[in-house]
Amino acid sequence: MFVPGLIERKREGGALAPAEWRDLVAAFQAGELPDYQMSALLMAVFFRGMTRAETAALLDAMVASGSRLDFSRLGLPVVDKHSTGGVGDKVSLVLAPLAAACGLVVPMMSGRGLGHTGGTLDKLESIPGFRTSLTLEETTAQIERLGVAMIGQTPEIAPVDKRLYAMRDVTATVECVPLIACSIMSKKLAEGLTGLVLDVKQGSGAFITDPEKSLELAQTMIRLGEDRGCPTVALLTAMDRPLGRACGNALETEEAIMALRGDGPEDLVEATVALAAEMLSVGGAEARAHGGTDERVREALRSGRAAEKFQQVIAAQGGDPHVVEDPSLLPQAAEVEVYYAPRGGTVLRVEPRAIGRAVVEMGGGRTRADDQVDPTVGFVITARPGQQVHMSEPLASIFARDSAGIERGRRALGEAILIGEGMAEVPRLIAARVTSTGVEKLT
Amino acid sequence: MFVPGLIERKREGGALAPAEWRDLVAAFQAGELPDYQMSALLMAVFFRGMTRAETAALLDAMVASGSRLDFSRLGLPVVDKHSTGGVGDKVSLVLAPLAAACGLVVPMMSGRGLGHTGGTLDKLESIPGFRTSLTLEETTAQIERLGVAMIGQTPEIAPVDKRLYAMRDVTATVECVPLIACSIMSKKLAEGLTGLVLDVKQGSGAFITDPEKSLELAQTMIRLGEDRGCPTVALLTAMDRPLGRACGNALETEEAIMALRGDGPEDLVEATVALAAEMLSVGGAEARAHGGTDERVREALRSGRAAEKFQQVIAAQGGDPHVVEDPSLLPQAAEVEVYYAPRGGTVLRVEPRAIGRAVVEMGGGRTRADDQVDPTVGFVITARPGQQVHMSEPLASIFARDSAGIERGRRALGEAILIGEGMAEVPRLIAARVTSTGVEKLT
Repeated sequence: MFVPGLIERKREGGALAPAEWRDLVAAFQAGELPDYQMSALLMAVFFRGMTRAETAALLDAMVASGSRLDFSRLGLPVVDKHSTGGVGDKVSLVLAPLAAACGLVVPMMSGRGLGHTGGTLDKLESIPGFRTSLTLEETTAQIERLGVAMIGQTPEIAPVDKRLYAMRDVTATVECVPLIACSIMSKKLAEGLTGLVLDVKQGSGAFITDPEKSLELAQTMIRLGEDRGCPTVALLTAMDRPLGRACGNALETEEAIMALRGDGPEDLVEATVALAAEMLSVGGAEARAHGGTDERVREALRSGRAAEKFQQVIAAQGGDPHVVEDPSLLPQAAEVEVYYAPRGGTVLRVEPRAIGRAVVEMGGGRTRADDQVDPTVGFVITARPGQQVHMSEPLASIFARDSAGIERGRRALGEAILIGEGMAEVPRLIAARVTSTGVEKLT
Repeated sequence: MFVPGLIERKREGGALAPAEWRDLVAAFQAGELPDYQMSALLMAVFFRGMTRAETAALLDAMVASGSRLDFSRLGLPVVDKHSTGGVGDKVSLVLAPLAAACGLVVPMMSGRGLGHTGGTLDKLESIPGFRTSLTLEETTAQIERLGVAMIGQTPEIAPVDKRLYAMRDVTATVECVPLIACSIMSKKLAEGLTGLVLDVKQGSGAFITDPEKSLELAQTMIRLGEDRGCPTVALLTAMDRPLGRACGNALETEEAIMALRGDGPEDLVEATVALAAEMLSVGGAEARAHGGTDERVREALRSGRAAEKFQQVIAAQGGDPHVVEDPSLLPQAAEVEVYYAPRGGTVLRVEPRAIGRAVVEMGGGRTRADDQVDPTVGFVITARPGQQVHMSEPLASIFARDSAGIERGRRALGEAILIGEGMAEVPRLIAARVTSTGVEKLT
């Protein structure tokens, strides 16, 4: 294998053969391909893209770099959800126990906060004692017992993805559809799924703000999943505003708990129920019948079975299960301040990116890999786009470590919440359903 | 300095500020910027190019990464020549002593064979005992005494260039005009020149085969040199055929010696004299007067002063100076075979790339960095494009280590020498003279 020749071919717009991708990944994993060759190749990929066959070959090589879970002996559908990431997106915390309560096996592997977005692991870890870094053995045993685990990527799962991702993050090669698709799908396929649901965010708070690109990403991942015998469906959901009201780790966990208890904000519940119904559908547990599946999911919430499943997960993973009955056991911010409308009018925008960035800067996320995350800080924003507000009406609460944090939060809300005259443009929460056969716009 | 942000800006087609390039190079030199970030940045540069200000900033940072020679105390013009590399290009071996014999100070730093082309250092080292790796102190002392040294890049000169070059070589980022220009000019400007002449090769045997790109490279380097107070001129010369007759290290050294003794092949002498005249001109030693300067250069050859200077250089650098009187002291190939015309007709092409590649494969170059070079192998090709030949007329001699080498050489000549009917298209040896004020086509 003459690596400079392969890089040159990609640079000139050619395609590498599947066996060449396989050998490149194997050499990279074995430490025989230097990082600087891989990063140059990925930058060439950024400019030239990858063919369908190339993307598939890279994905297969990434999956093959590690272990692959196998729950086939359980005789149940094994289904996970992946979100491309947003602000206030605490869906996973509700969805994993909910789907498990509906009879699915859910080996949910999640990530940490990235850029302006939060991460499921950071949110779960706001629960006192909760461990997200289970071993593969602990994970398997828990899934066999409870049907669900909520963990971080173990070292055995797609280890090449972990190294590639860390490198892409510092070489400006993140925003590349085939590379994003391979990164996501390598972890998901290694979970041994029989079905996968994708929550692809659209709007200014998403990583990919171009709607065409986010659709392309969804379709690329669906094709990769389906071609490998894993039925895959995507919902395109709105991230032009935060999802739900809470933004910040413990605040979002509290909101997720309220949703599991049947008292979540409408948009969070709508998104979660729709994703759960899709999970049941791709798992083959139930054909998607409009209304019918949703009803079954809502019943699992109403009955308390989903909340109970979350308690079992918390207890199994070392956390304090009483937080589900009493969310005040979650860590509390030192300073709280209400934010009032600076003027009356229509809420035209609640810009999620400014909110997400502020949470990070207030201590709720990382600007360096080794930063400690403060679970207590963030916002609860009750103002919604389209709402009429009076001057000095409460729009949000700011949760911070100190007065500087409150000040930072106040500035962020001032930037993010746009009040004016006229009509707010509020895209539908779930804009479209994408399958291997087409795009179904939901209007 | 947030490096991923800088890479991203370049990736998106933006420009980095001069201070950003300076900081990047300094961090790279200090080992604080990982190779994988630099290689990703250079791949982005490959696709997006560099502005004039960026190229200048990168060049200045590369020069500043090491020492800068200073011969101003000698009170003489300090001039070097750089060739972009070709097949049979032994000009430097003749030119350095010739220019010194004409009164210039010539701190000539050369390279090794690269790809299908030979390198001056490898050719010089075919002289028994000749050392090309002098220390900076030895080099300076020799230049003060003889006015000329012929050496490799010392570790003190543009050390960042050396690391960048090694990385570009294995990451498919070599063929990029601003990066090539910075690499060449960083070494040349560090020599403390008062003038520089560039021999930019054009044609199928050049590294850059696109004539527009080679002109762009010449103009970029001229601008960089002139902007830094180093008058720079380029000749665009033909590399659609080998230069001279000999291809291969010892064979080329022998031909260079013959040229110094006034008995070189016409094209080699024409190119060398023209480049020497340009060196005198940019050095300010003499205004370029058509004919006059050439005559002075030819006189230095005829009188034996240039040959004598080469003997002094050889002796000073540990080699056997008697090779100048008796080139048979150079190492001789074990096997020699004459190659005869397979048919009669016109010699339409003598393709340099096939010849250069064969020399490498016969052992006269490297396919890996640690390969030993065999100085004896190669070709002496007497057939010239445009020449009428009879079937079975001798066209060349093959010099090899063994019969397999002879066979490889025969195959290469069969590929390279095209005999047919009609007229050969033979571009002028020196096609154009490029200065900061324009391109003067020589027809």
